Amino acid sequence: MSILVVGSVAFDDIQTPFGKAERCLGGSATYFSVAASFFTDVDLVAVVGDDFSDRDMEIFRGRRINTGGLQRVSGAKTFFWSGEYGYDLNVAKTLDTRLNVFGEFRPQLNERQRKARVLFLANIHPELQMDVLHQTERPKLVALDTMNLWIATKRDALEKAFSEVDLVVINDAETRQFTGETNIVKGARKILDLGPHTIVIKRGEYGVLMITRNSAFAVPAYPLENVFDPTGAGDTFAGGFLGYLTSRQEHNDRELRRAIIFGSVLASFTVEKFSLDRLREITLDNIYERYRAFRALTHFEDFDAS
Amino acid sequence: MSILVVGSVAFDDIQTPFGKAERCLGGSATYFSVAASFFTDVDLVAVVGDDFSDRDMEIFRGRRINTGGLQRVSGAKTFFWSGEYGYDLNVAKTLDTRLNVFGEFRPQLNERQRKARVLFLANIHPELQMDVLHQTERPKLVALDTMNLWIATKRDALEKAFSEVDLVVINDAETRQFTGETNIVKGARKILDLGPHTIVIKRGEYGVLMITRNSAFAVPAYPLENVFDPTGAGDTFAGGFLGYLTSRQEHNDRELRRAIIFGSVLASFTVEKFSLDRLREITLDNIYERYRAFRALTHFEDFDAS
Repeated sequence: MSILVVGSVAFDDIQTPFGKAERCLGGSATYFSVAASFFTDVDLVAVVGDDFSDRDMEIFRGRRINTGGLQRVSGAKTFFWSGEYGYDLNVAKTLDTRLNVFGEFRPQLNERQRKARVLFLANIHPELQMDVLHQTERPKLVALDTMNLWIATKRDALEKAFSEVDLVVINDAETRQFTGETNIVKGARKILDLGPHTIVIKRGEYGVLMITRNSAFAVPAYPLENVFDPTGAGDTFAGGFLGYLTSRQEHNDRELRRAIIFGSVLASFTVEKFSLDRLREITLDNIYERYRAFRALTHFEDFDAS
Repeated sequence: MSILVVGSVAFDDIQTPFGKAERCLGGSATYFSVAASFFTDVDLVAVVGDDFSDRDMEIFRGRRINTGGLQRVSGAKTFFWSGEYGYDLNVAKTLDTRLNVFGEFRPQLNERQRKARVLFLANIHPELQMDVLHQTERPKLVALDTMNLWIATKRDALEKAFSEVDLVVINDAETRQFTGETNIVKGARKILDLGPHTIVIKRGEYGVLMITRNSAFAVPAYPLENVFDPTGAGDTFAGGFLGYLTSRQEHNDRELRRAIIFGSVLASFTVEKFSLDRLREITLDNIYERYRAFRALTHFEDFDAS
């Protein structure tokens, strides 16, 4: 069983109230792959320039990540993002985006990749997302992330993309932007009406809300005393969520809920240090331990009125 | 077993994106009393003017609310608040506040009130809160709410008040304002350091976080498709929370968590209509039903890695 992800591998300049990191490793597919690889085999499809060194590649080594689909383009530079956070760590301000090698990226899947059990279309142009989907032999589960830029500029393509996937991962501001609904539950229903059976709404420090046609599941974020850098939290969440799901036979409500917790656990680690520094350190045991901490944080007993 | 509440009974003018209500019943002690009275006997200490009619009194009738401590002052007007909400229903904009009869309010507790098992000091001047506390025979549990105004103008008195109570109910913006900490967990610890054993942080549509010296409990708000008027949600929460606790022999972690859910349940009803209109309609059965819905919303299973 494996999961295929297509998205960005990038270098980031990041500034938070607690410090600054330059040209550190980032990108949606990077965070996603590392998080998912704790649970399952990952097939990474992305592109880098020749400034992406052998040392940079180390993040993928010794993990269940197949980098055969990571193209390297000579004479070009890796995707670059620069962003800044104020004390409200829920909101990133983009200072600079340079697509570089990513501007011409047209992924071609190989035989193995086309047979992936689960597909995650990380935040890239919705037409590119659909191009990748149409190359596959329709995975059992197809999930898609997006961003405010595509909602504003590629709305029709995005609506089409929503209609072809099973699951949408999106944040609350994007849900409001896309649907025009201030009420998040109504917004979620509007997206479900386009086709997906499940929508997972990321709410930053407030946790996650998952809505299907007949159920809702809500979980707070793990309350951390030290949130250092929120970059990549959403993609890490998606990696933990879908990585765990890929490893399970069933994708029923019980497993979807556990998957949301595993995604939240992974994201709670990511924000503790810059870039993927914290994800590099942790083990499956750390993950299971924080899963239990999530239970302790959220559990309450039935009440019997009789 | 009874709970004593001191706070405001008021008339409100409210405007939300969904409608407008004029001179409707409001006030912290009103919402609190009605919510708490589903679980326990409530002793209400507050003041109104002679514009508070017999019909207005109906909200308290047929409930477990003793209104012997509700003073009526002739020739004066009831406390009045006017506020407005935009689409972000988490933030109220105060348009007008007229203390009226509340400006001269100096409550005198009677014998029964002094022996209350639980005391809730709703959001009034912190010195007045302490004056009431000092008249009691130290209840088993004393809880206090406050607001941005007192944090800005009566900081020393408020800090003293915090040091004399067991439990603080506060919202996240006030926690940040009082402590200067952007991180909510660090802020909560700073308030616990002043004396209370428990802090309950209200986060509007994002739910509630309860932090004690050695545990944390987090619960999302009930995701509603129709949030109509958030006025009184916090006081209703406090009423359900402390009302349930008062009805229990033990105030251990298990009961505190259940109490948080009951508070959240009551608040989720309040916001569905203007003023106390929804609270007027519901029964204990409705409350128990939504408690079970909260379990369904938040429950997930252990994960056994072996």
